[in-house]
Amino acid sequence: MMTPTGGEGAEKMDAEDGVNCSDYEHDIENEESGGYWSGIYDRNMAHTMPLLMKRANTTSQIAIVGANPCPIESLDYEIFDNEILKNDWRSKKKVQIIHYVMLKWGFALLIGLGTGLVGFFNSFAVENIAGFKLLMTTGLMSKHRYLDAFLAYAGANMCLAAAAAALCAFIAPAAAGSGIPEVKAYLNGVDAQNILAPSTLFVKIFGSILGVSAGFVVGKEGPMVHTGACIASLLGQGGSHKYHLTCTWLRYFKNDRDRRDMITCGAAAGVAAAFRAPVGGVLFALEEAASWWRSALLWRTFFTTAVVAIVLRVAIQFCATGKCGLFGEGGLIMYDVSSANITYSASGIFAVLLLGAIAGILGSIYNYLVDKVVRTYSIINGKGAFSKISLVVTIALLTSCCYYFLPWIAKCIRCPSNSTVICPSVDESGDYKSFQCPPGYYNDLASLFLNTNDDAIRNLFSPRIIKEFHITSLFIYFATIYCLGIITYGIAIPSGLFIPVILAGAAYGRLFGRLFETITELDRGLFALLGAASFLGGTMRMTVSLCVILLELTNDLLLLPLVMLVLLVSKSVADSFNKGVYDQILKIKGLPYLEAHAEPYMRNLVTRDVVSGPLITFSGIEKVANILQALNTTGHNGFPVIDEPPFSDSPELCGLVLRSHLLVLLKEKIFSRDRGFANQRIFQRISTLDFGKAGSGKGIKLEDLDIQEEEMDMYVDLHPITNASPYTVVETMSLAKAAILFRQHGLRHMCVVPKSQGRPPVVGILTRHDFMPEHVLGLHPDIMPHKWK
Amino acid sequence: MMTPTGGEGAEKMDAEDGVNCSDYEHDIENEESGGYWSGIYDRNMAHTMPLLMKRANTTSQIAIVGANPCPIESLDYEIFDNEILKNDWRSKKKVQIIHYVMLKWGFALLIGLGTGLVGFFNSFAVENIAGFKLLMTTGLMSKHRYLDAFLAYAGANMCLAAAAAALCAFIAPAAAGSGIPEVKAYLNGVDAQNILAPSTLFVKIFGSILGVSAGFVVGKEGPMVHTGACIASLLGQGGSHKYHLTCTWLRYFKNDRDRRDMITCGAAAGVAAAFRAPVGGVLFALEEAASWWRSALLWRTFFTTAVVAIVLRVAIQFCATGKCGLFGEGGLIMYDVSSANITYSASGIFAVLLLGAIAGILGSIYNYLVDKVVRTYSIINGKGAFSKISLVVTIALLTSCCYYFLPWIAKCIRCPSNSTVICPSVDESGDYKSFQCPPGYYNDLASLFLNTNDDAIRNLFSPRIIKEFHITSLFIYFATIYCLGIITYGIAIPSGLFIPVILAGAAYGRLFGRLFETITELDRGLFALLGAASFLGGTMRMTVSLCVILLELTNDLLLLPLVMLVLLVSKSVADSFNKGVYDQILKIKGLPYLEAHAEPYMRNLVTRDVVSGPLITFSGIEKVANILQALNTTGHNGFPVIDEPPFSDSPELCGLVLRSHLLVLLKEKIFSRDRGFANQRIFQRISTLDFGKAGSGKGIKLEDLDIQEEEMDMYVDLHPITNASPYTVVETMSLAKAAILFRQHGLRHMCVVPKSQGRPPVVGILTRHDFMPEHVLGLHPDIMPHKWK
Repeated sequence: MMTPTGGEGAEKMDAEDGVNCSDYEHDIENEESGGYWSGIYDRNMAHTMPLLMKRANTTSQIAIVGANPCPIESLDYEIFDNEILKNDWRSKKKVQIIHYVMLKWGFALLIGLGTGLVGFFNSFAVENIAGFKLLMTTGLMSKHRYLDAFLAYAGANMCLAAAAAALCAFIAPAAAGSGIPEVKAYLNGVDAQNILAPSTLFVKIFGSILGVSAGFVVGKEGPMVHTGACIASLLGQGGSHKYHLTCTWLRYFKNDRDRRDMITCGAAAGVAAAFRAPVGGVLFALEEAASWWRSALLWRTFFTTAVVAIVLRVAIQFCATGKCGLFGEGGLIMYDVSSANITYSASGIFAVLLLGAIAGILGSIYNYLVDKVVRTYSIINGKGAFSKISLVVTIALLTSCCYYFLPWIAKCIRCPSNSTVICPSVDESGDYKSFQCPPGYYNDLASLFLNTNDDAIRNLFSPRIIKEFHITSLFIYFATIYCLGIITYGIAIPSGLFIPVILAGAAYGRLFGRLFETITELDRGLFALLGAASFLGGTMRMTVSLCVILLELTNDLLLLPLVMLVLLVSKSVADSFNKGVYDQILKIKGLPYLEAHAEPYMRNLVTRDVVSGPLITFSGIEKVANILQALNTTGHNGFPVIDEPPFSDSPELCGLVLRSHLLVLLKEKIFSRDRGFANQRIFQRISTLDFGKAGSGKGIKLEDLDIQEEEMDMYVDLHPITNASPYTVVETMSLAKAAILFRQHGLRHMCVVPKSQGRPPVVGILTRHDFMPEHVLGLHPDIMPHKWK
Repeated sequence: MMTPTGGEGAEKMDAEDGVNCSDYEHDIENEESGGYWSGIYDRNMAHTMPLLMKRANTTSQIAIVGANPCPIESLDYEIFDNEILKNDWRSKKKVQIIHYVMLKWGFALLIGLGTGLVGFFNSFAVENIAGFKLLMTTGLMSKHRYLDAFLAYAGANMCLAAAAAALCAFIAPAAAGSGIPEVKAYLNGVDAQNILAPSTLFVKIFGSILGVSAGFVVGKEGPMVHTGACIASLLGQGGSHKYHLTCTWLRYFKNDRDRRDMITCGAAAGVAAAFRAPVGGVLFALEEAASWWRSALLWRTFFTTAVVAIVLRVAIQFCATGKCGLFGEGGLIMYDVSSANITYSASGIFAVLLLGAIAGILGSIYNYLVDKVVRTYSIINGKGAFSKISLVVTIALLTSCCYYFLPWIAKCIRCPSNSTVICPSVDESGDYKSFQCPPGYYNDLASLFLNTNDDAIRNLFSPRIIKEFHITSLFIYFATIYCLGIITYGIAIPSGLFIPVILAGAAYGRLFGRLFETITELDRGLFALLGAASFLGGTMRMTVSLCVILLELTNDLLLLPLVMLVLLVSKSVADSFNKGVYDQILKIKGLPYLEAHAEPYMRNLVTRDVVSGPLITFSGIEKVANILQALNTTGHNGFPVIDEPPFSDSPELCGLVLRSHLLVLLKEKIFSRDRGFANQRIFQRISTLDFGKAGSGKGIKLEDLDIQEEEMDMYVDLHPITNASPYTVVETMSLAKAAILFRQHGLRHMCVVPKSQGRPPVVGILTRHDFMPEHVLGLHPDIMPHKWK
């Protein structure tokens, strides 16, 4: 029996998840004028959901339409508690549980190994490609063939850039950008289509190598996080039928909870591999990436990053023998800031505070401009693959011009007499580029620009006695990198934000140190590090994880108090202007991210106020036709099940049943002619494994069902597949508290129960959609923050 | 109207919190035969709760008995959502919110400053007292007055020990032990009486100094965590009326949520101060101490520990000028393990894995024995102050004998020729103790025993080229420290567990390194560090925080992969035998700690199965007499409020009202003769500040009320003080899921609502007590893990 209750008109058929996609697509199209995703998804497709319905009553076969995969899907982290799962759990032997746990750890090991190897391969490839390119350029320059050198340099950059863009445009558009916001959204419960697909992984790895080699102001760190998450997701798919890689045990991981845990490990492994910072990786996952955390996960993540650390160690030990071509020791960035002799003076601390405060302002401006640029680019990118590639090549040309021509402005500096390295340098990663200078002199700006990003950072971090930069050179470098960083993010290549921000921050810090050298004795290399820290704090707004990452990079814990201080200052200052850069990108992409805290105005509302649309409920024993109709006419993914007389004394809440589970039951055709319980038959035919969540777009679809006309009037016993313990809230529960409950438990559906007697046992269902500010403020436009109507 | 529903007989009046104390006291007395707390609380007092009731109906004054403070009280971390609080929040201006936030950060600053200073003072005092003692002893020995030396040494130790024990026994018994389990319990929602009182703070600081100076195998780290928590709690008391230190703003912090956050900061600051490890402190709070965590808290904790780090830095910079007496640079432990040249060979990794595995076994045995010893000692300690002090002095004598006489066994070792320090040493903290050896020789065992614990650790961590130990010496030292560590914990002095475990672990690791030196090239100092890490992992079962603490102590991040590895191995091995040492102590102390995970058998139960006792509910507008009777006859702290006709169409759940809020309303006497709403009057008379939770034992008591006979028949409007959004679960909710919900939101009460019609809107209340294994298995003894009845 289908009971429409609540009713606010038939047009509002959107109480459920299915609508998220159309709603958010709508947002993107109207408000954001051509959102980020628009180039990725077919715009028209979204509009077909969820209201398309076509039922051919006259034929014996039912044509079912409307199950197009939704671009954005909510994930369900709830512990599902139905009879079949319980039964399975009870029959599980202890040895099986041990297998399961061992498999979990095995996966963590594999994620660590995979991410570690990819991280090493990435650095190895970048160092060799970029190194070869730079060798060629400096070789031509040393023969005074300056125009040829520029053409070779710019040509190589543009080719590499075009290749990266082509990969992104044609194979996996989802691989563009940092990837951290998408991973963050996934861990919050929002699955954007293809974001963790194998094709995305492929493009992310190779696109990142090409992009970084092309000399863009981009890093490999964000893409590494995404790569780690993709590797984890691939392992969590439960094998592959296509390649005959299946086993029963793998299928136990076919659920959102286990995948979430694995992807958290993957994200941590990514940071660990990118920065060689295992503890920083764990903290990054904890502070920035994950929305849910358990101490068991802390341990597993830690194990994964330890594996990454060991893989990298062994690889570097191997490369130390010189078998890795141009890959030196510095490919995985690790700097030595040898300024152990830090004294704390009042003027020094004042300088550091000022450094942090200015960096906070610069960081928030950076975020503001990145936001604008990404919105503009998404219009360009939306026009097709050719536009995407053109944009990338244009930026590559611009970057090449800046990098090649700006060093001509700089004055030549005499080589230091006490240096242990050859000056001017002769190899590709030299820190004293000769450029146009006479022998015995070097060009400080060329040493920064015509180098890999990692080497440029190492240069900036170097102590005063080893390396000196002109104030004008530092200023030119800072301004160029700051601007290039802003206009580079958003183009269709995998592009991390860490390196641009660290580069700009280090240049800023070193410049600041030079300007304020009269009032403080702190070394300029240290100032560069503090500048980098403060810029990171000002844009990304992380604290502990950044602090630990920087410490692991520089291997000097004595710097800790100062790094903490600038991070805190810059984050506080920047927070008073706008949000962190990842949160901004999340918003541009229209991903319905649930914040940890409820909005203040939600305290003035109760759950009843936001429940919308007619509620579709099922009886405990329901007619096949009713179920099919509900599945057909709505995009809902969960339906409350109500037991009614004669099966109970009065209507009572039995639980919640999921669309995917209903489809399993319908496919198995466990129907009966009379309204009776069918537990036994269901237990025999269906096992937990049938409930495994398939990879995106692979589950049973409505179209796959082949239900005959005579079966339409038969009954299905829903009890065994009903989650008997759905999370419920009373209709008068404060919306703020309900939102926190929803978010903390990673729910997809939350039942609203009445507070008084004589009404149906469920009065509505809340989904992620219902907590979104757009929805809430749409229903109650007069409720403004801090005001009571 | 008072509605007894649910009813299972009048004797089971214990559905609520109030009973926790009597129930757990009961546990302690019968099962644990003289539990840990028994020496602290008056045993008889507990039995008066919660059933004592005396009502003098004939007099106009009502004598109220039975509100004795309960030794263990649940905390309420729920966001209380009643009309008065909402009204207050709505009227709050933005500037007030900014003040509130600034005050929060101000408190974090104060906690950091306070804990940092105490940490420094602690080290300063210990180094000076212990240094003076050792100087005296070695001075006498150098004159060959060996007996006098022993008498001086043992006498000083026993006096210091007796002083520490006397402080503990007479002033604050709650200050005994580590304090970490109690802080952990507090942050889980269990407030043990006096655990964060000012007297406890005082004894913790001075008792710890005396105890560590007395040469016990105890550390100052656990007590520092407790100290940090006490300082935070003191600041969170909302000022003091007694000393006229009050202000309106401070009173906004008078609630469990804000106090919890501050105490989390305090615990982190404690670790930061003890180990000079700010990041390790944050992670300790996250991994071990806190049960709830928010990213906002991460940031604030980080700030607190940064302040601690800066305070310590400045203090050490000050002491470097030689103004701190015998306090050297090493007072706050910080070791240098200079074995940067680590190579990874298969045999080396195998040795490290073996080291971890054996340490896991030794660690779990350590935990097992500590458990037994603490249970035995609690009987002795329960016999009064004299027994306590005697026990402490006995252990002090035993320790002194071991420390003084065991070095006589050791052979003299020739001083290294290449040493940069004087050998044998002449000052008190020398690493080459002459003891009975001839000039040019030193006694390796004396260098470990007759030194402060910090210096002994530094000795063990020193690289091979600097220092050598005999295998027998290492074995003797390891065995002695392992045994002394076990028999020392549980005596009535503040005693940390970190240092004993690190000492035993470092000796074990160095011994292991010597035994396996043929198969690995890793340095013995490094093995000592790995041994310490593995022992810590085997007893405390932390991972990330220990790893970071050890790295911050040794300042060498290159060791990271190996430290991670041994920690993981030793924790995994030890976890298969028993629980972490803090969890064991929590259990011995009978603190009702809620685990993050529900027990497996809870999946077979629903909430209805554990609800016990008759439910006491109030009407929305209730008679004074009924309220008083309910408060008198029960120990409940929360009562559901039900609106009934004529105020609603049918009985409906209005919310939950707290005992403390009822007392405020009764004290203000906002009564009326007729059953009508009184919102306006209540808003005028009562503000949020009246609801502030007073320090333990300071709130309004039933005895304070002065209700006249004629007022008994008047009515009170409970609506404005009722929490309209209590957390609810349906009666068929799985108990496992309800337990997770309860724990994740830090609740004190959870309402159980019926799943069907025609029954009262609330069928029971769940409290912490109802989720305890003792209670659940008591009601359902046939439900065993992994079995279904």
